[in-house]
This record gives sequence, C-alpha cells and structure tokens, in this order.
Amino acid sequence: MQQKSLNPDEIISLVGGRKYSCVLENPINNIASLENAKSSDVAFCRDSKLRKVLNQSQAGIVITTEKLASQYTGKASIISHSNPELAFSELIDHFYPEKKTLSGVQQGAYIHPSAVVHQEASIANGVTIAENASIAAGVVIMPGCVIGAEAKIGENTLLHPNVVVYAGVSIGKKCIIQANATIGSDGFGYTKSKKGWRKIQHIGSVVIGDEVEIGANTCIDRGMLGDTKINRGVKLDNLIQIAHNVTVGDNTIMAACSGVAGSTKIGNECMIAGRVSIIGHLTIVSQTIIAVGSFVINSIKEAGMYGGVVGVYPQKKNLKLIAVLNKIAETGRALWKKEET
Amino acid sequence: MQQKSLNPDEIISLVGGRKYSCVLENPINNIASLENAKSSDVAFCRDSKLRKVLNQSQAGIVITTEKLASQYTGKASIISHSNPELAFSELIDHFYPEKKTLSGVQQGAYIHPSAVVHQEASIANGVTIAENASIAAGVVIMPGCVIGAEAKIGENTLLHPNVVVYAGVSIGKKCIIQANATIGSDGFGYTKSKKGWRKIQHIGSVVIGDEVEIGANTCIDRGMLGDTKINRGVKLDNLIQIAHNVTVGDNTIMAACSGVAGSTKIGNECMIAGRVSIIGHLTIVSQTIIAVGSFVINSIKEAGMYGGVVGVYPQKKNLKLIAVLNKIAETGRALWKKEET
Amino acid sequence: MQQKSLNPDEIISLVGGRKYSCVLENPINNIASLENAKSSDVAFCRDSKLRKVLNQSQAGIVITTEKLASQYTGKASIISHSNPELAFSELIDHFYPEKKTLSGVQQGAYIHPSAVVHQEASIANGVTIAENASIAAGVVIMPGCVIGAEAKIGENTLLHPNVVVYAGVSIGKKCIIQANATIGSDGFGYTKSKKGWRKIQHIGSVVIGDEVEIGANTCIDRGMLGDTKINRGVKLDNLIQIAHNVTVGDNTIMAACSGVAGSTKIGNECMIAGRVSIIGHLTIVSQTIIAVGSFVINSIKEAGMYGGVVGVYPQKKNLKLIAVLNKIAETGRALWKKEET
Repeated sequence: MQQKSLNPDEIISLVGGRKYSCVLENPINNIASLENAKSSDVAFCRDSKLRKVLNQSQAGIVITTEKLASQYTGKASIISHSNPELAFSELIDHFYPEKKTLSGVQQGAYIHPSAVVHQEASIANGVTIAENASIAAGVVIMPGCVIGAEAKIGENTLLHPNVVVYAGVSIGKKCIIQANATIGSDGFGYTKSKKGWRKIQHIGSVVIGDEVEIGANTCIDRGMLGDTKINRGVKLDNLIQIAHNVTVGDNTIMAACSGVAGSTKIGNECMIAGRVSIIGHLTIVSQTIIAVGSFVINSIKEAGMYGGVVGVYPQKKNLKLIAVLNKIAETGRALWKKEET
Repeated sequence: MQQKSLNPDEIISLVGGRKYSCVLENPINNIASLENAKSSDVAFCRDSKLRKVLNQSQAGIVITTEKLASQYTGKASIISHSNPELAFSELIDHFYPEKKTLSGVQQGAYIHPSAVVHQEASIANGVTIAENASIAAGVVIMPGCVIGAEAKIGENTLLHPNVVVYAGVSIGKKCIIQANATIGSDGFGYTKSKKGWRKIQHIGSVVIGDEVEIGANTCIDRGMLGDTKINRGVKLDNLIQIAHNVTVGDNTIMAACSGVAGSTKIGNECMIAGRVSIIGHLTIVSQTIIAVGSFVINSIKEAGMYGGVVGVYPQKKNLKLIAVLNKIAETGRALWKKEET
Repeated sequence: MQQKSLNPDEIISLVGGRKYSCVLENPINNIASLENAKSSDVAFCRDSKLRKVLNQSQAGIVITTEKLASQYTGKASIISHSNPELAFSELIDHFYPEKKTLSGVQQGAYIHPSAVVHQEASIANGVTIAENASIAAGVVIMPGCVIGAEAKIGENTLLHPNVVVYAGVSIGKKCIIQANATIGSDGFGYTKSKKGWRKIQHIGSVVIGDEVEIGANTCIDRGMLGDTKINRGVKLDNLIQIAHNVTVGDNTIMAACSGVAGSTKIGNECMIAGRVSIIGHLTIVSQTIIAVGSFVINSIKEAGMYGGVVGVYPQKKNLKLIAVLNKIAETGRALWKKEET
C-alpha cells in the first residue's frame, strides 16, 4: 500500500479539514482506532468523553473537532474537521478500496432462460434466478441467493449470500442486502372460516428504493393488495420485522431487533433505535426519534424524541416515568401501605 | 382475464352474500382496496371506522356488512355478507389462481439415493435432500432448501427458498414454510461440568401438523427427549422463537417476534400478538388472547384476554396499570415528594 | 443396540454416582424422561418440584440427587449422583453416539482453487468456499453454507446448513453453528453527509473462540476497526443480535432473542436469559446473571443477579418494583386521586 501513504496535506485535500497542529509532517499509511493506533496510523475523535483517550493516543495523525483540537495535549499531528467521523469514513475507503468483483455468471448458478441478466452483473455459484427476473448492470449476487420470478434488481446492488427475494419484488440501485435476509415473504393474514384460519393471498409486493441497506436475517413481508415500501436511503439493521403494507420513508434508519406491524407509515428521516416495537395502522411523522426498546402504540404527530416501554411518550416524560418507577422501587411497600391505612 | 369477469350474481354464487343495492349490474374483473379500486374492481369493507372511505370508494362493487350496507351513501353496487373478509379472500383466489408448479426434480438438486421423492413432487435446483428423507406428492421445495436425514414432508406442503429442515423432523400436509426458517435446530441445553458447559444432546425432534404456516426466519428447536409440537392449523409469523419441547395447540396463531421458552404448553385457538415473550414450563389454556408485547411469567388457567409488560395480567387490569403509569409520569415527582415529607 | 444395554454398575462406571437402592439389577437399554420412561429406560431427576413425578415414574433406573433418593417411594432402582443432569447427558451420548460424517468434498460444492480444505474435512453439496479460506481437519460443513474469502474454520467445527460466514471471519475448534446463522455481516454504522447516510466501511472482523455454539438465525456483526469477539465456550441461542465490536467473555451463555448493541463488553461466565436487551458501550462484569426480558442501560460493575424492564436493577429490587406495580394496578385510580385532592 506504499502508494497510498498520505501526509496531512494529502489527507486534507482528500477529506477536507485544516491543519490544526501538525508538528511532524509524518505520512501515515493506515487507519486505526484511537486506542490501537500507531505513529503510522490516522485516527479520529469526535466525542468529548474520549478526551483522555485522545490525548494518550499513539496515532500519527488525529482528525478531531475544533474544540477537542484546542484542548489537545498529546503528540499527534492534529487535523480539525467539522465532521471527523465523515472524514475518517472516507479515509477508510481510501485505504480499503472496494475490490472489484468480476462480472459474469458462474457455472454453478441456475438462471431461467427467460431471466434477463446484464452482462456486467456478477452471479455466483449456487444462485437461482427464476423466470423473467431482471438483474441490472453492476449487480453482485453472492452464493445461495434465490431471486423469484419477475423480481427486479437495480444497478450496482449487492446481495450477500443466501438472501431470498420473492417473486415480483423490486429492489433499487446501490442497495446492500446482508445475508439471510428475506424480502417479499407472505404477509401474516388469515380470516376465520368454518374450517379454521383461511390464508389471505397476498398479491401485493415489496418495493425497495435506491441506496437502501437491509440487515442480516431481517424480514420484509409483501403487501396484501398494495406494496410494502422501503424508500430511498433507508437503513435497516439485523433481525428486523417489517410487516405487510408498511411504508418506511426516505433516509429513515432503524436499529436491530425492531419490528413494525402491518400498514404503519413511518415518515422520512426518522431514527428508530433497537428493539423498538411499533404496532399496526399508525402514522409516525418525519424526523421522529424513538428511544431504544420503546413500545409505540399510538401515532406520533409531532416530530421529536419519544420513548417508553408501556406506551410511548415524549422522551422527557418517559425519563421522568423511569425515574419515578425507580424511586417507587426504592421507597417500596411504604408507598401503598400508607395508601391503605 | 376476460373469462374471469364477474357480475354481482356470479360473485354471490361464488362466495355467498346477497345483493343489497346493485344499481348497475356492472361486471368487475379485478380486486382492489377501497382506496385504490376503480369501477371495474370489487373491494370489501368490514370496519365501521372506514365508513367514510367506503362511501367515497370508486369500486364497482363493494362487499360489506349488513350494517354498513344499510348506511351506505356511495355509488357502488353493494353486496352484504356475514363475513366480507372471507368472501374477499375467496375472490382474490378467483382472480389470482395458484400457478401450478411443474412436478419433477431439477438437475441441480442433490438427492440422496435412499431418499424417497414422490414423482409428483417438485424439487428445485440447489435443494439438498439427505438419506432416507421422504417427500410426498404435491410437495414443492424451492431453491436452496436443505432437508435432513429421515425428515418427512407431507402432501402439498410448500417450502419457500433456503428453509432448513433438520434430520428427523416431520412436517404435515398443506403446510407453508416461509424463507430462511429453521426447523429442528438443537435445543439450547447445557449442563455444567468441570470443563465448562457440556452440550446436552437433543434426541427429540419437531413434529408439525397439517395446514401449519411458519414465518420467515422463524426458528423451531427440536426437543431434548420428546418432540417439539406445532399442531394442526397453527400459524406462526416471522422471526419467532419456539424452544425445545414446546407444544403449540391446534389453530393457535402467533404474530411476529414472539418467543416461547422451553417446555411451555400453549392450548388450542389462542391468539398471541407480536413481540410476546412466554417463559418456560408454563401452561396456557386454550382460547387465551395475549396482547402485543406482553411478558408472560405465569401459567394462564382461564381463557380470556391478557396483557402486561412486567408480568401478564388480565388485559383490563393491564390497561389500568398503563393508565396509572401514565398518570404517575404526569404528576411526576410530586408523588414521592409527598411520601418523603 | 443390544451391546449397549447397561446395568446399574455399568452406568456408575460410565458416569459416576452410587447405587442408592438398586432392588432389581435390571439392565436398561435406552434413556427417557421421567414421564415417558419404561422399565427398560433410565431417567433422571434433579428438581425437588418433580418429586411426585419421580415417585410415579415407570423408569427402570433413575439417577437423582442424594436428597431426592432419600425421600424416594417408587419402585425404580435409584442411583444417587452429585450432578444427575450431567450423568444423564453422558448417558444420552452413550446410547446415541455421534454418527461419523464421511470426509471429503461432495461434487456439488464450489471451492475456490486457492482455498485450503483439509482432506479430513467434510464439505457437502451446495457449499461455497471462497478464495484463501481455510478449513481444518474434522470440520463438517453442511449444504448451502457460504464461507467467505480468507475465513478460517478450526478443527472439528460443525456448520449446519445455510450458515453464512463472511470474508475474514475466524471460527475456533469444536464450535457448532446452527442453521441460517450469519457471522460477520457489516456492522450498522453510518455517518451523516450532505447526500444522506454514508456507510462506514467495517474493516474489522469476527473472531470466535473454541467450543462456541451459535444458535439458528443468530447474527454477529463484524467490527468497524477492531474485531467482534465471541470467546471460548460461549453459547448463544437462536435469533440473537450481537452488534459490531462487542466482546462476549469465556463461557458466557445467552438465551434466545437477546441483543447486545455495539462495543459492549460482557465478562466471563455470565448467564443472560432470553429477550434481554443490552445497550451499547457498556461493561458487564464476569459472573453477572441477567433475568429474562431485562433492559440493561447501565454498566454492571458487581457480579450478581439483575433484572428490570425499565432499566436494570439488582433482581431483588426489580422484584419489589414489579410487586409495587402490581399493587398499583390493583389499587388503581385511588392512588393518584388522593394525590390530586
């Protein structure tokens, strides 16, 4: 990686920022965490709580905020930056450029003659592509993926191994689907008949926008009549459940183990933490932030921060509730004994 | 689909109901939701809350309840029906009949010579079937499924792609298993030995009755000595965990992200909502309904509706608890301050 | 299995214990649960709550504790043992010895020429092994598994079907990975840029120690810079989420549906029940026990038992909290009405 070594000026020309205190004009040739960095590494720090770690870091160069730079007492060269994490992320990609996957269909792939696979797509061994599916240029489908009939996968999308895309699903451009994700499974819908539960056939599908990422073992059910929609720029973590006819708006991000029940509409640019449960038929406005583990049982009509495990409240109220519960646990039986006497 | 168009009389002869107000004897040729229906579509409505949507719908025909029919002010032809959802579900199947999968074993399937695969089963490329497994007539196994040794799959059961059925598992007739489900994985059992945790071998299996549906990425562990049992007509949604030696009774339905710990017995015709946790060694009687997100830590001995996030109560009491917590959060610190003074 | 029948002396010489009351020197030839055992079976009992079941069991031999043996009123031969479950577990393995899998690479496996597969490994049909991966002696890789580039799998490790091991992941010896698990997926990390969320490339990996077991459909994300670490002897159940850069210490055990957010460090020999949520950047000391469904939002600095659904407390305090909430639900509105007047 000799040709990739960078001095502070080169870093700044790549990712921005300014030389705050670059004592040594040391070139660096790798990236590392503050804790593990050597003098040939660049690290970053954006968090004031890490000031001590920052000051002790052996990194050759650290990219940090103006404020932390001004308080810095260590020996690294410092580049100040308005968004150190973004700069660092770009440097990772500099030192670890994407390996180009060879185009073409490997011999052990099963592709229906009616499927259209662009010659610049890469289809691995053990992949199955059903009739009339369409795979665009630059798509990479790793081993064991199964692409259903009529499904469409847009340019430069990457499917990690063993992803299942059901018939009719449409996935946009530049998406990344992690392993063992399921997209387009039947929604959970039955109606009572004399013979027991009767399955309601789901003739809707799933439509996924561009630049969406779907986590490992995450499930997105197809819609009953209309489609389940995961809009542009959405990022879903692992083990998430998205039920039939849900809409997740542009650039909304949702952490692991969360679940959204049927027909709920989530707005744009929401941030939903891990293990959040959202019941069905709700509307969550754009720019809503929901705290980890929350249980959302009502629509949210005003942007802001919410949380709560027994129904969701504005986060401030929720924290008060948690404090009160805490206090009750401390004062314990005294509380109701007084009530009873 | 010309031959499939239906007028009100034909609909009624297919799915029942009666002509309530069929002004125009318009034939329809597709199904749609109330919101999206055109004059050539049939829609349905069973929910009084949707009365406004119903009255404004552009559908040619709407199937609805007697009550909603009597209040209808729109222009569609109305068929009244005792179960509009059931009728609609049957109409979906009329307009979207199941595509017949061709029988036979595709070339890229790996079938052990000792396995018995009925000539009217359909085995896709990339499927592996181990020794002595038995696959009945009409079974469809989609790509990437793995069927373990001695496993049995009953007539007309459908396995979506990448399902794993471990050795010895038995699946009934007319079941549907969604993608990436795991059936028969080892139960989670260890015993302490001087060398650390010692795995307890699980020699039981999983027995799944007829007409069961298992959701995507759902896991059902095999029993330790006896079997884990998923009885006839059970419907499990996505990302559910069923631990070793659990029994789920006939026609019980369980929504996504729920989990049942070891040896718990759930009765027949229960309705268990999403994200419900049921600890081990409990008994839940038949016809129990458990609210979304509930935490069940005691057996339920009387049929009814239950809920609660800090242990489960009859739902009425649970709702009271939630209301109280809400109130506490509002009155806040005042509550304990008085206690303390 | 004639040659495998055992009399009490033979059982004791295999698994220890002493003859407490062996009236009949009956040989037994199988193992069973207390409830289902016949006179030709051995069963075990370690739980005083099962005394009645124990006394009524039809088992030929029961292995139980000294205490239960002293109170026994049934007719089986009794062997007393300091750890009946361990003894029983060893007897299961006696009657059900592991079937030896044949070594070799099946024809339908896709192995990159640069991968190193030991001749005593067993690679099934439909497995893909990428460039420079290394598979040690005695490894069994079942159908549909995908092993990424440079990944390493240690001696005698077993991968059940459709497991995905991403590039660069290292798995130790004698591990067992259940079906559809995902190991090494990208951590969930994005940084805001003007164009929306920018993916932070994860150049760390996952390192799994020896004798680890990973449950079905469980996900372990790779680290961002350093590695996610699952240390020796850890047992993870199904549908667990382990986020980027988490460390799980030696012999820690975690039940189904739990989740650990990024960079949290869990000590050795912890016992974490099902559906536990642990937020990111915490430290949990060794020998911590966490009750089912708990929500851990602070580091735990002292070993012991903890629980709580609105933040985690020492379990004693948590149980008091639950009791208080229970009581509040009973006294209901009265409580705050008094406050308000």
